Amino acid sequence: MAGVLAGMRVVEGSAFVAVPLAGMTLAQMGADVIRFDRPQGGLDARRWPVTKDGVSLFWAGMNKGKRSLAVDMARPEGQEIVTALICAPGPEAGMFLTNLRARGWMDYPALKARREDLIMVSLTGTRRGEPAVDYTVNPSLGFPMATGAEGSAEPVAHVLPAWDCIAGGMVVNALLAAERHRLRTGRGQLAELSLKDVAAAMLGHLGIVGEVLANGVDRAKAGNALYGAYGQDFLLACGTRVMVVGLTDRQWRGLVQVLEAKEAVAALERRLGLDLRAEGNRWAARKEITGLFAPWFATRPLAEVAPLFDAAGLTWSVFRSFGEAVRTDPDLSPDNPMIAAIHQPGVGVLPVPGLPIGFSDLERVAPAPAPVLGQHTEEILADLLGLGSGQIGRLMDAGVVAQGIRPAVRAA
Amino acid sequence: MAGVLAGMRVVEGSAFVAVPLAGMTLAQMGADVIRFDRPQGGLDARRWPVTKDGVSLFWAGMNKGKRSLAVDMARPEGQEIVTALICAPGPEAGMFLTNLRARGWMDYPALKARREDLIMVSLTGTRRGEPAVDYTVNPSLGFPMATGAEGSAEPVAHVLPAWDCIAGGMVVNALLAAERHRLRTGRGQLAELSLKDVAAAMLGHLGIVGEVLANGVDRAKAGNALYGAYGQDFLLACGTRVMVVGLTDRQWRGLVQVLEAKEAVAALERRLGLDLRAEGNRWAARKEITGLFAPWFATRPLAEVAPLFDAAGLTWSVFRSFGEAVRTDPDLSPDNPMIAAIHQPGVGVLPVPGLPIGFSDLERVAPAPAPVLGQHTEEILADLLGLGSGQIGRLMDAGVVAQGIRPAVRAA
Repeated sequence: MAGVLAGMRVVEGSAFVAVPLAGMTLAQMGADVIRFDRPQGGLDARRWPVTKDGVSLFWAGMNKGKRSLAVDMARPEGQEIVTALICAPGPEAGMFLTNLRARGWMDYPALKARREDLIMVSLTGTRRGEPAVDYTVNPSLGFPMATGAEGSAEPVAHVLPAWDCIAGGMVVNALLAAERHRLRTGRGQLAELSLKDVAAAMLGHLGIVGEVLANGVDRAKAGNALYGAYGQDFLLACGTRVMVVGLTDRQWRGLVQVLEAKEAVAALERRLGLDLRAEGNRWAARKEITGLFAPWFATRPLAEVAPLFDAAGLTWSVFRSFGEAVRTDPDLSPDNPMIAAIHQPGVGVLPVPGLPIGFSDLERVAPAPAPVLGQHTEEILADLLGLGSGQIGRLMDAGVVAQGIRPAVRAA
Repeated sequence: MAGVLAGMRVVEGSAFVAVPLAGMTLAQMGADVIRFDRPQGGLDARRWPVTKDGVSLFWAGMNKGKRSLAVDMARPEGQEIVTALICAPGPEAGMFLTNLRARGWMDYPALKARREDLIMVSLTGTRRGEPAVDYTVNPSLGFPMATGAEGSAEPVAHVLPAWDCIAGGMVVNALLAAERHRLRTGRGQLAELSLKDVAAAMLGHLGIVGEVLANGVDRAKAGNALYGAYGQDFLLACGTRVMVVGLTDRQWRGLVQVLEAKEAVAALERRLGLDLRAEGNRWAARKEITGLFAPWFATRPLAEVAPLFDAAGLTWSVFRSFGEAVRTDPDLSPDNPMIAAIHQPGVGVLPVPGLPIGFSDLERVAPAPAPVLGQHTEEILADLLGLGSGQIGRLMDAGVVAQGIRPAVRAA
C-alpha cells in the first residue's frame, strides 16, 4: 500500500503542533518524512498528555509514520549531518519543513548554497519572528472575548489548538505548491508563514474584520448559539444535551416540522413581526425560538429524540465528554476505515487514525506508529548519507548521533 | 504578479466554510477558481456577518479572487454547462471541489465519463454522508465539555469554526496531492473526506484518544490554563488581561526571571516537593504558581509589563475583543504585507488579507475582492465553453444562467 505521495522525501526540524502535524500529514500520504531531534528529545518530547510512565501521547500522536533521526545540532558534525540530509540529491527530495529558529547553518541561504533548488517551509510565531503560540495568538485576536455565556466578562480560550492545526494544513499547502512550481520551473524557494498571520487572515476571511469596520459591531458572547441564524443547545429529559441546527432553510423547516411547531412559529412570527425564513431574523429571535422549543426537548429522552431527528435528516448532535466520545462513537473506533488498532511503543495498542482522505485510485494506507526517538538513525546515515558502519559507530560513541532512545520523563 | 499555482483551473460547487476556504486558498495561490451557484445564490449567499444592507461579509471573505458563474443546476441545460466546465480540457484543468450533495449528474462516475482523468475532492458531513457541520461535530467529540471555567458543568462551544477551517486545508492538500499523482501517472481520482473524520483524526493526533484509553482520564475543564505545563491569564493593574506562557524550559525560566520570582519558586518547589523544571509538575502546581505570580501582575499596568516581557523575549499576549484587535493591531492592517485595503463591491474599502504564505521565488499577490454573484458568467461561457453571444443571450433569457446579480437580502 503506497500513498499518494510515495517517493517524496521531506526532512522536518520541528516541535509542538503545526509543523509536526504537517509532516505527519505528508507521511500519512506516503511521503518519507524524516524528523530530526537532539538526542535528549525536542521541545515537545514530553508534551502532555503523557502516560503514567511519562511517555508523551502527544508526541506519539503527532509523529506517526515518520522516521526519527537523533542528532546533536549543537555540534558541527551534527549540523553537517542535518545539512547533508536536507540537501541530499534526488528529484523528490530537497524539501525541509521547520518551525525551529532557522538561523546560521540552518537558514535558507546556507542550505540553498548546498542545494540550489531546495524547498524550505518556515513557520514562525509572528511575521517579525517574535515568539507566539496558539495560546497567545488566540487571545490577541479576540476569540476568547466572544466565547462563552452571554453577558459574561471572562474570556474563554479554546482547548483545541485550532490555529496550530490550521497552520499545519497551510504548511502542507505551501510545500505541495512549491514542489509543483519546482517540477515546472526547476526553481526551489523559501515559503514563509507565521502562526499569527494564518490566524489574522482567517479573521478577515470570516468577515469579522468587516463586521468591526463596516458595521461598527464588536461581536458579543452568545453562548452556544449558532451565529447569524438558528442553532442552539437543549437539555433533554434524560439529562443529555443536544445541539440542533437551523442554518439553512431546509434545516430550519425540518426542525420546525419534527417539533410540530409550525403553528407556534407562525404565531411567534406574527408577534415579533419577523419572517423567520430569513436566517438573520432567526438570529434576532433566537431567544424566543429557544423558549418555544425548550419544553419539547425537556420532556423527551434521547431514545425518543434521536430516531425522530435522524429519520428527518436533521443536522444535530449530542454533547459528549472526550471519554464518552472515544468510548462510544464508532467513528472513533476501527469500525471507521480511517482508524486501525496498532501498537505504539511505550503506550500499547490503541485505535489510531490515519489520513482522513480516501483516494479512489489508491488503497487506504493504514496508520503507522510514531518512531521511538532516534529509531532510524543508523539506516538514515547509511542509506541516505552513505556512511559506513565504522563512521556511524564513531559518531554514536562521540554522542553526535544516537539510536533508539526513550526520552527521559523529566527535563534535564 | 502571478501566484505559485498560476495556470491551474479549479471548479468549485460549494457553500459555507471548508470548501469555499479551500477554493479561495487556491485562488490566492494564483489558480483560476470558478465557483458556480444557482442564480438566487448558494446556501451561504446571505451568511452572517452581513452589512446593514444585507450584503454578506462572510461570502465576500470566503470567495475572494474567484470567478463567479450563476447557473440554474435544476435544469438540464444548467447541468450540462456545469459538467462541461468541470470536464473542460487542459492539462491543468479537470479539477472539481465540492461539499454539495454530488448525486446523479454531478457525482464522480457521471463526471468521469466526460473526463477520464478528472480530479474531484468531495467533502461530506460524516463518512456515511450524513449531515454534519462544525456546530454539531464539535459537541459530539468532546471539546465543549472540556472548555471553560474549572468546575463548570456547562459546555462551551468555540466561536471559530475550527473544524471547517482545518477541513478546508485538508481539501487543498487532497487536491494538490491528487494533481501531483495525475502529473506522474495520468490518472485522476476521487478524493473523499468528511468533516467528522477530519475532527476525529485530530482527537487521535493530539493524544486525547490515548489519554482516555491508555490513562483512563477524561480531561476536565481548566479555564484558560495551558494544558500540561504552565500558561495562565492574569489581570493587570490597568484592567488589561494578559496570557503568559511557560511551556518550554526557556519560557518558564524567562518568566520566573522577569517576575523576579526565583526564590519564591524555589520555596514553592520545596513546599510542594516538586521540581518545577518538569512541565508536568508545573501543570500539577499551576494554581500555586498562579497564586504566587498574581500579585506581581495585579500591581503593574500594561505600560510597565509590556516592555519588560518583550525585552526578555517572553511568549505572551494581551486579551482583546475583535474590535480592539482589528482597530489596534498592525498585523491586521495594511502595515502587514499580507493585507491590502481594497474595495469590495457592496461593502466598501476594507483591509483584506491575501495568502499568509510568502514565496521567495514569486511576488506576493495582492488580495482581490470577491465577485458579485454571476459576475463572470458571460466570459466563462464564451472563453471556456466557446458559446457565442447568441447562445449566451438565449440562456440568459431562459434564466438558465445569469450575469452579475446581487443576492437578495432575504430568503425567497
